[in-house]
Amino acid sequence: MTAGGWSDAAEVLGADLHLELTGAGSRRAVLIRALREAVRSGRLEPGTRLPPYRSLAADLGLARNTVADAYAELVAEGWLTSRQGSGTRVAHGAVAPEPGAGAGIGAGSAWAGVGAGSAWAGVGAGAARAGVPGGLPEAVPYDLVQGKPDPAAFPRAAWLAAARRALTAAPHEAFGIGDPRGRVELRHALAGYLARVRGVRTSPDRIVVCSGAAHALRLLARTVPGPWAVESYGLPFHRGLLAEAGVLTRPVAVDEGGVDVGRLPGGVGAVLLTPAHQFPTGGPLLPDRRASVLDWARETGGLVVEDDYDGEFRYDRRPVGVLQGLAPDRTVLIGSVSKSLSPALRIGWMVLPAPLVDEVVAAKGEREPYSSATEQLTLADFLVSGAYDRHVRRMRRHHRGRRDRLVAVLAERVPRVRVTGVAAGLHAVVELPAGTERAAVGAAARHGVAVEGLGDYRHPEAGGAARADGLVVGYATPPERLYGAALDALCAALREALDA
Amino acid sequence: MTAGGWSDAAEVLGADLHLELTGAGSRRAVLIRALREAVRSGRLEPGTRLPPYRSLAADLGLARNTVADAYAELVAEGWLTSRQGSGTRVAHGAVAPEPGAGAGIGAGSAWAGVGAGSAWAGVGAGAARAGVPGGLPEAVPYDLVQGKPDPAAFPRAAWLAAARRALTAAPHEAFGIGDPRGRVELRHALAGYLARVRGVRTSPDRIVVCSGAAHALRLLARTVPGPWAVESYGLPFHRGLLAEAGVLTRPVAVDEGGVDVGRLPGGVGAVLLTPAHQFPTGGPLLPDRRASVLDWARETGGLVVEDDYDGEFRYDRRPVGVLQGLAPDRTVLIGSVSKSLSPALRIGWMVLPAPLVDEVVAAKGEREPYSSATEQLTLADFLVSGAYDRHVRRMRRHHRGRRDRLVAVLAERVPRVRVTGVAAGLHAVVELPAGTERAAVGAAARHGVAVEGLGDYRHPEAGGAARADGLVVGYATPPERLYGAALDALCAALREALDA
Repeated sequence: MTAGGWSDAAEVLGADLHLELTGAGSRRAVLIRALREAVRSGRLEPGTRLPPYRSLAADLGLARNTVADAYAELVAEGWLTSRQGSGTRVAHGAVAPEPGAGAGIGAGSAWAGVGAGSAWAGVGAGAARAGVPGGLPEAVPYDLVQGKPDPAAFPRAAWLAAARRALTAAPHEAFGIGDPRGRVELRHALAGYLARVRGVRTSPDRIVVCSGAAHALRLLARTVPGPWAVESYGLPFHRGLLAEAGVLTRPVAVDEGGVDVGRLPGGVGAVLLTPAHQFPTGGPLLPDRRASVLDWARETGGLVVEDDYDGEFRYDRRPVGVLQGLAPDRTVLIGSVSKSLSPALRIGWMVLPAPLVDEVVAAKGEREPYSSATEQLTLADFLVSGAYDRHVRRMRRHHRGRRDRLVAVLAERVPRVRVTGVAAGLHAVVELPAGTERAAVGAAARHGVAVEGLGDYRHPEAGGAARADGLVVGYATPPERLYGAALDALCAALREALDA
Repeated sequence: MTAGGWSDAAEVLGADLHLELTGAGSRRAVLIRALREAVRSGRLEPGTRLPPYRSLAADLGLARNTVADAYAELVAEGWLTSRQGSGTRVAHGAVAPEPGAGAGIGAGSAWAGVGAGSAWAGVGAGAARAGVPGGLPEAVPYDLVQGKPDPAAFPRAAWLAAARRALTAAPHEAFGIGDPRGRVELRHALAGYLARVRGVRTSPDRIVVCSGAAHALRLLARTVPGPWAVESYGLPFHRGLLAEAGVLTRPVAVDEGGVDVGRLPGGVGAVLLTPAHQFPTGGPLLPDRRASVLDWARETGGLVVEDDYDGEFRYDRRPVGVLQGLAPDRTVLIGSVSKSLSPALRIGWMVLPAPLVDEVVAAKGEREPYSSATEQLTLADFLVSGAYDRHVRRMRRHHRGRRDRLVAVLAERVPRVRVTGVAAGLHAVVELPAGTERAAVGAAARHGVAVEGLGDYRHPEAGGAARADGLVVGYATPPERLYGAALDALCAALREALDA
């Protein structure tokens, strides 16, 4: 309770910034109003340095973007100033304190803290999916929604070193208008890496760099006519963007062995699969099923679109090679660094049959390479120098440790559930007794855990019986210091839901 | 003629790699065959380091990508190896020399050099536009097609320093799934910079970062229904991508004062303008015309889309502020770093009226920020630290020097032409006697100069008389050492065309 901190303009405000988050409007608007009021009243004196927005966000239980936006808005309005290396400070002279305003703390005010954000907690996973970018409702402290590595694990120093080498060595033309297929250095590095690690058979001229797996699907949707067959469990986001591009999807039942090609509907031009680690149920496509899919492609002229979304993260046995290596002329492999490095880099790739390259490039836009050349060159160096391998190995150990903890904690505390799909990836399926899935998702939300149910991934037109109830638990996202608490909260929620 | 260079495996091959570029197929295929043959015959011994692909490209008169692709292909095939820091070398053991093959040079062979590429020279500007990415046919040595800064001018060291500062200071969440509007730090920096330098009135929450001006137009085309009015002279590429997105364009006559709003067709939802420096004719939109455009927007509810493509490069008088600052609620400002820094970075922005922000973000894709967060943070630092201002000032001096040279050389050697539109930007219009434009473009091609005619930019449905014949000369692209030769060739071509 260091109110004195505010009146000492030289001091950086710590975690004790006092704000009254009350009144109508969005969280951002409420926060802006509270900060403005703190400056206007003189409680925040000119020159006072505000806490970094991430600390304030953590303390208030707000999204960092909300706080960053509020700061930016107040800078634009002239209440605050922001300078590189000096942080965000209360502006000098911009605001005259009102007569009589001082350092007093108003009655009824509350100190910021996790508790103060609790009025916004308890947002369900439905809101989590529909909500803010990144998928996490702002006040849910534990994020177990699948699909994202822990952002704190990004190898900043190694990436910067690669950037320095790459930018120093780059030819001048790298800063001109680029090849829409992507930098040749990166396509070259990817061809070698994917051959070595994933069993891909290709050459650099059949690789097209893009902005990520979603971008790849959008481009393919404009190139390969629908309908496409898709797994009956999969990312609604992917189905949605295919539909938006005019490609209808037809579900094919996923069982323990993956997709049964015997059930592929007729008349489809492509089938979108996750053969290494079915998403989200978690099994590999069994060998005879793999052969059948390729037979189907060869016989019908259909295309296999292989989403190799987490092929590098396999823990308990030999990696499952890609289908692409068995039929390079009938398969499009899609990959990205979003799970291995960071979704912030916006680099993905397609490994294409030769006849598709020109069409995909035309769909991409001859003049819009999308991915930055400097990032592409940095990733090429990162791959060729071995830094990527080192990072993946380190993350594999890290993820495996988290998975083991999840499995052990659940086995001990909630032995009624069964954890499956854990041989690979960044997520597991917690199978639940029939009829308890929605209750478990709701209980998790009440315990501050954002997590999704297996049913959220089911194709709306999937026929037959659904698979078991379950939660899809992404164990890679929470920061290390919160992982234990996240598991505690998950266990408490599961016990509550199963006992109800 | 150092054939000995090949047999000394420790030596780096200089510019004297001997290759027979003969036979059928693409340039890439011919080059691959020649390199393969050189290895197979033993003329290139295992361990020999090949010249950097850019030197070989320059020597052979080939595009760098062609040579880089050929190298990559041969690495994939096992003929060559490539290692960071060690360059590309002939593989050890991969290929057994054929008996009897030695260091002899076959009869009829030609040494590589600019001359050897001349069989592919003389490609006209029509091919230049339709041709390879980047717009330049591979063997045209002088690139005076507008739109690109000299790639050698990219400020590598300053950019790397900004990247280091930005990546070191970034919050962890920067490596998570990003805000589809773009990083708040960048939107904040842009709001401040654009206000200061261009007179933009906005706040960070009304800025959406995108992959470049073309990406911005694609997103707007999905948000603002057509038809749009466009200037009767403008980028065919922009008209094309609007058409592809289903937006018809209606030309409005451009005269010396810009677009006359009295001629705006009825029923258009938006007008796409280049008010600071009409593209490509080069004048600013006159003050009363500016006021009329805004009146039109306010009266009809129409939107002004302001392409501020080179607003920072103004030489002889005060900068022309943006229209956006006069009517932030009726104007979308589009900008990018493609001309000020490099098109390789793939960062552009839209400054939007508040009600459009959500629609544009929805069109962009909530889960696909496109621009890399690390690049965005680097650019934010580059702006806030003043490095961007320093670079722009340096480039402004540099471009002005080139413009002055162009004007002086033409005044001296081809006094019959008139150079206009030179107060700003990276290009000038060389006005020609009526009926000589196509001849001038053709003569330029024969002299090794890629350049476009004013007619290439005219809207196909533009009514009335065309403006004067002319060439649109981009003076920013050639490397410094070639600029004098490019001007010599341009003058020779013009004299030839005008004397014919």
